[in-house]
Amino acid sequence: MSSKNTLEKISENVSFGGKQMRYRHASSSLNCEMNFSIFIPSDTNNNTVPVIYWLSGLTCTDENFVIKAGAQKYAQEHGIAIVCPDTSPRGDNIPDDPDKSYDLGLGAGFYLNATKKPWIDNYHMYDYLVEELPALINKNFKINEEKMSISGHSMGGHGALTIALKNPDLYSSVSAFSPICSPINCPWGEKALSNYIGGNSIDNFEDWAEYDAVELIKKSSEHVKSSMPILVDQGDADNFLNEQLKTELLISVSKKENFPMNIRYQEGYDHSYFFIASFIEEHIKFHSEYLKD
Amino acid sequence: MSSKNTLEKISENVSFGGKQMRYRHASSSLNCEMNFSIFIPSDTNNNTVPVIYWLSGLTCTDENFVIKAGAQKYAQEHGIAIVCPDTSPRGDNIPDDPDKSYDLGLGAGFYLNATKKPWIDNYHMYDYLVEELPALINKNFKINEEKMSISGHSMGGHGALTIALKNPDLYSSVSAFSPICSPINCPWGEKALSNYIGGNSIDNFEDWAEYDAVELIKKSSEHVKSSMPILVDQGDADNFLNEQLKTELLISVSKKENFPMNIRYQEGYDHSYFFIASFIEEHIKFHSEYLKD
Repeated sequence: MSSKNTLEKISENVSFGGKQMRYRHASSSLNCEMNFSIFIPSDTNNNTVPVIYWLSGLTCTDENFVIKAGAQKYAQEHGIAIVCPDTSPRGDNIPDDPDKSYDLGLGAGFYLNATKKPWIDNYHMYDYLVEELPALINKNFKINEEKMSISGHSMGGHGALTIALKNPDLYSSVSAFSPICSPINCPWGEKALSNYIGGNSIDNFEDWAEYDAVELIKKSSEHVKSSMPILVDQGDADNFLNEQLKTELLISVSKKENFPMNIRYQEGYDHSYFFIASFIEEHIKFHSEYLKD
Repeated sequence: MSSKNTLEKISENVSFGGKQMRYRHASSSLNCEMNFSIFIPSDTNNNTVPVIYWLSGLTCTDENFVIKAGAQKYAQEHGIAIVCPDTSPRGDNIPDDPDKSYDLGLGAGFYLNATKKPWIDNYHMYDYLVEELPALINKNFKINEEKMSISGHSMGGHGALTIALKNPDLYSSVSAFSPICSPINCPWGEKALSNYIGGNSIDNFEDWAEYDAVELIKKSSEHVKSSMPILVDQGDADNFLNEQLKTELLISVSKKENFPMNIRYQEGYDHSYFFIASFIEEHIKFHSEYLKD
């Protein structure tokens, strides 16, 4: 096992002039070894660069976005690093869903801190992403610690929105593709929260609401409402839209709470990485405007 | 099994405004069912569009390029269709290398017509690509039959170069990433040709030379030399460059035979799809200049 705070490089490929790299490290939050991918643009004149954290969806690893989204071109153009973590703790000793379903356990960490057995010892993706991983990245790469944004897809869109809303001073901007807008109101979220946090959306409402973007928007301060730039893209041909994603709840609450955000339906697009690839240029440009010095 | 000349749609995703689709059909050249992928740009005003055939490398299917190269953006911008065939016949009844190596049998058709057992009944990727597949594509999609170009990577770069050189009137232009420039002079090529065609590069030279870009250049007519646009990109950090790809042989023969072609070494790039993604924009732009009406 890697010793703490050391990084083991797994691979490095030149991509659009920058470097697409993959690393392995021992995580203290998750009690296991974790992989992450990082793109570092070239020609930075030895200066630090801003960074976008990308959170992937159910079943993904740190590699899906790296291989499928084509984001390196735009990260290189705007001089921004992109960090892609894995979507759950990993390893033979890590608890998984006994039914091996795709929406609980490995590949389905939901970007929260589990409080129930058997998940409690490892499933702390929230702490990993908010504290451990940025500290590790900032220590080992030339990153501008003051310029950090966050984005993600589906479960990762939920992760990006909730993490940014809970830590508005850490992030310059947040965007999401096809986010799970209200986990307390959909089957994916109910399964994850009842297992990782326990109870249900009534008897354990306060704990569940901590991981629900719609509920966090209701609790956001006026300062956050007026200062957190949010961009959301949702395909209108997405098979998960009505049952799992519920974009309409995000639109309703943002109007009711007077929280300006740019939520766009994209005609004909589905839930796949073909959708992400088609609009990642606009998302990186959006973040770049808030990541400038 | 699909009946002859019918296409079964496997999937369709909107991508950069166009449609990325995957189909299955019964192939008479290969005596098996085959998948192919096709991107059709939108807003063609019901007109036909030119087409680029993309040939992938060892171990790939029709999907690798579709998922990893990011070509749809540029195909949409230039109004060009892209067809991606598989890299060999497929199926439980198709002969494979008894050693299950990656460089012979399934996933390693080498874009030739096999003449030896057990390959002879199925391994006719050359006929499939030159005759059967274009006829099927032109019958089922709104393609300009007069405007066809070809490109590929590694084994597929070999395929693109040799197929275009043997059929110069069929193709408007040809390009390759990291092509196997001279199969008769490298281990991958020697293994493929000795199995599929038989003999060795001395006793069966004439037959082997039919599938070797360097040898085909020597035999090309003055008309072909003066009229076939060729672009080749090769990463200088490619682990296969010296033993398998031998770009220097292509440079030498093109100079000696006075066959102008644009062969470029790209600094720091390796053999991966990160290399292809970084330069596919330039390749599609190159082809678009020769595919205009």
